[in-house]
Amino acid sequence: MAAHYSVVGVGNAIVDVLAQAEDDFLVENGLVRGAMTLIDAQQAEALYQKMGPGRSISGGSAANTIAGIASLGGRAAFIGKVADDLLGQVFRHDIRAAGVTYETPPLTGEDALPTARSLILVTPDGERTMNTFLGACVALGPEDIDGELIAAAQVTYLEGYLWDPPKAKEAFVKAADLAHAADRRVALTLSDPFCVERHRDSFRDLVGGHVDILFANQAEALSLLEVDSTDDVLEGLRGECEIVVVTRGAGGAVVMEGLSTYEVPAVPPLRLVDATGAGDLFAAGFLQGFCQGRHPADAARLGAVAAAEVIAHFGARPETNLARLARDSGVE
Amino acid sequence: MAAHYSVVGVGNAIVDVLAQAEDDFLVENGLVRGAMTLIDAQQAEALYQKMGPGRSISGGSAANTIAGIASLGGRAAFIGKVADDLLGQVFRHDIRAAGVTYETPPLTGEDALPTARSLILVTPDGERTMNTFLGACVALGPEDIDGELIAAAQVTYLEGYLWDPPKAKEAFVKAADLAHAADRRVALTLSDPFCVERHRDSFRDLVGGHVDILFANQAEALSLLEVDSTDDVLEGLRGECEIVVVTRGAGGAVVMEGLSTYEVPAVPPLRLVDATGAGDLFAAGFLQGFCQGRHPADAARLGAVAAAEVIAHFGARPETNLARLARDSGVE
Repeated sequence: MAAHYSVVGVGNAIVDVLAQAEDDFLVENGLVRGAMTLIDAQQAEALYQKMGPGRSISGGSAANTIAGIASLGGRAAFIGKVADDLLGQVFRHDIRAAGVTYETPPLTGEDALPTARSLILVTPDGERTMNTFLGACVALGPEDIDGELIAAAQVTYLEGYLWDPPKAKEAFVKAADLAHAADRRVALTLSDPFCVERHRDSFRDLVGGHVDILFANQAEALSLLEVDSTDDVLEGLRGECEIVVVTRGAGGAVVMEGLSTYEVPAVPPLRLVDATGAGDLFAAGFLQGFCQGRHPADAARLGAVAAAEVIAHFGARPETNLARLARDSGVE
Repeated sequence: MAAHYSVVGVGNAIVDVLAQAEDDFLVENGLVRGAMTLIDAQQAEALYQKMGPGRSISGGSAANTIAGIASLGGRAAFIGKVADDLLGQVFRHDIRAAGVTYETPPLTGEDALPTARSLILVTPDGERTMNTFLGACVALGPEDIDGELIAAAQVTYLEGYLWDPPKAKEAFVKAADLAHAADRRVALTLSDPFCVERHRDSFRDLVGGHVDILFANQAEALSLLEVDSTDDVLEGLRGECEIVVVTRGAGGAVVMEGLSTYEVPAVPPLRLVDATGAGDLFAAGFLQGFCQGRHPADAARLGAVAAAEVIAHFGARPETNLARLARDSGVE
């Protein structure tokens, strides 16, 4: 059956609060540069009080990817949990306004945790250091996985961060199983090297049995397989996943499909302002290209164009119509 | 007595929600391009549902100016009313994080109006069209004017928008009177041509009796005096205000001090992304320059540098340390 959607994403529903910070601020506050660290409500409040003026922009790794796919002209849907509060309304508004189908019911009730937020410090080199309070995301469970939606999408895209909230992994596995039962593809991003460390064995099992398309940056890929080179990563995953995409920042990306590998250079951004969302938007371009039937190297070029757009401004959602940008960049 | 602060600002305490929009969107929704239009809670909700993905960034005209003065290295304070809600916390956090003294108690109570928000549509030419729900701002009154704070600032800076919430004009006049009683200066920005139309007679009385430094863009200035040229504006205001600053966008600014006038060119921005805050940041540079004892033309050059920074990105608060930028731009 023809798929109604290109991609449905399942992930944490988060609003980012981005502030500029000097490198010293990270050191003084014990923050792990470039990583995503989980924090609780009290830590979030304490860090917020110390950080600089913020910009609140909807985020969430898979949600950013899905917004990118919509901007590229793809039909896309998202599953993720917000609370019935102002940030939840903001998240819902923004993803729907981006053209994405989003119907996950919000968490309600007196004791409901608030909508998740990620306090993101952007240092002068454009690197982002994320500190995430998961809030309502911990309530995402298998009951939120809409089987018809999953079956209607060419690809179900899952973020490794979903392994952090305890119930979400059940949602994750259910979504993957439903996708395969409908003869669709399952894609996974490993999200963060520390996330891989926290859940390495589970991720290894997943990648071996449930995942058709794997996205990882170099640090995540090396950590997953506990090896030292991209070649060893590709060797280790050959035969396990249909496609493996390893992103290497300004060093471009390597795509392995079956026995073939392709190297695709990065697209230089107009300027490097904020790396938040670079990997998410690379995945958006690649997946939309994949769904259009492009050659993997060509899909990766679309990813590189989308990533270059998002790092040229604050926030992890595109500010430009990516379909038009791709045409203007000659990767239509 | 030496002033502890350069400038204390009194204005509406607003969080901006900025979204990109095509020109057609303005037409279809009957929005007045380039203007600030007041809307009620229901209109705000309806417009929010229709507009694109947003970025929430603290705003408010005088508040932006004050944040700019702090970024330029000046000691600055702000008086304005938020509610005790999430947006109120955001506003307070951001202005304090910018280095500004801000102690106005929030509006509380069951029936308290929420913190003000301005839904800002940014069209591809960078022009901003603002739709403001004043919310808690209508509760600002003379009781919020801290006489010691006013007396401790070289300049008390007031925004014309304060004439919209009914009680705030009393706060406005009280602040001006206290400033003059302490032998300080009073500055006013006319804010918006429609705001001038709504309150022209009051503004004429104010300018004649209470204002030492007047900021207006060309449209506001022409509307205030109901004349057709900047020359007529300056002629009409000569002798009424110590200093008159008329900004003309890319056409630069004209400054009149006594019998002298100075024309200062605009500083070309790195790129024009979003004009929100251009006038506010010009005022920041000018006022900080004035407080440092600069020549009016030199103060206006500092204003032009600050304005060029803020229009090169989304949002009306500086993203760059303006003191450093001014040094790098040779207007130290």
